[in-house]
Amino acid sequence: MSKRIEIRLAGAGGQGIILAGVILAEAAAIHEGRFVCQTQSYGPEARGGSCRSDVVISDEEIDYPQAVQPDILLCLNQKACDLYVFDLKPGGTLIVDDSRVHHLPVTRAVGLPFTRIAREEAGLEMLANIVALGALAVLTGVVSLESLAAAVLARVPRGTEMPNRKALEAGAQAAREFLARRGSESSRQP
Amino acid sequence: MSKRIEIRLAGAGGQGIILAGVILAEAAAIHEGRFVCQTQSYGPEARGGSCRSDVVISDEEIDYPQAVQPDILLCLNQKACDLYVFDLKPGGTLIVDDSRVHHLPVTRAVGLPFTRIAREEAGLEMLANIVALGALAVLTGVVSLESLAAAVLARVPRGTEMPNRKALEAGAQAAREFLARRGSESSRQP
Repeated sequence: MSKRIEIRLAGAGGQGIILAGVILAEAAAIHEGRFVCQTQSYGPEARGGSCRSDVVISDEEIDYPQAVQPDILLCLNQKACDLYVFDLKPGGTLIVDDSRVHHLPVTRAVGLPFTRIAREEAGLEMLANIVALGALAVLTGVVSLESLAAAVLARVPRGTEMPNRKALEAGAQAAREFLARRGSESSRQP
Repeated sequence: MSKRIEIRLAGAGGQGIILAGVILAEAAAIHEGRFVCQTQSYGPEARGGSCRSDVVISDEEIDYPQAVQPDILLCLNQKACDLYVFDLKPGGTLIVDDSRVHHLPVTRAVGLPFTRIAREEAGLEMLANIVALGALAVLTGVVSLESLAAAVLARVPRGTEMPNRKALEAGAQAAREFLARRGSESSRQP
């Protein structure tokens, strides 16, 4: 059976959504040898508006290149979350930047403060997209952190490797701590 | 009537095809307010292999996001040209880097030495993708050179604005000279 995984990354223009999509696609395709199709759509509202990138990863050739019902939805702002949450596959994983998304639509959403982590751990708010990718990899296992690191280093501007590495690792670490917290909470339930 | 224009950019991995696709898409979407969808597909052959990016530009919302029969095909190497030329719409525009594509499939193809121009005019062979975009804009009019310049400057690494500007202008100039040559040739015909 073909295992097709659909991931949608969404946020505001300027948050690095498209670069994040390209990096995630290349991590899976170039570094893990999977079939990948990556799409971005722009409407006339693109100027300063919403931005979305779909990444479809499969073990077989991909027929339809866009996410129809994402297994994983990453939202870097409230508007994206409000817009796309209803597309999420039932049981799918919703990951949000809770520095910017204050109203979570479902209690099982994973909220982590990507923007704050980017500022505090990597020194640059604009690396929130890379922090988010690090967390996404740990939370979902859709690509390995090693593949992601290689793809990040191949795409980011020369001279910015170190803060990008820090951002990726800080996102991964935040996700590990989240999983540990959730694990200890559920083991406390009767 | 909806005017849908399909553009395919193709070449080897590392030639900057994906960045060129993102820049072309953003020139049309963000700077000209059109509907745009931009896709890249990776197969397991992606490592060091072929690379392609489709950009669909329309005045209306876009239903299918990939190029089905490109109006414009840009090939930065021979393999891409051999692979995709048969998809080109009859009467469509084929543009190739004739520094790298030595066997042109049709006599009406536009061959310009993007790699050589990038090296000689902008000092960096790796800017052949930007040279090619400048030429594509002039040859096809699909986006304005001004929109393209704004999109280039928004995407390229800080500190590389000047060689990128030079590359874009050198590509545009090569295309203008090509059009002037072709015009004078056809006016000499009986």
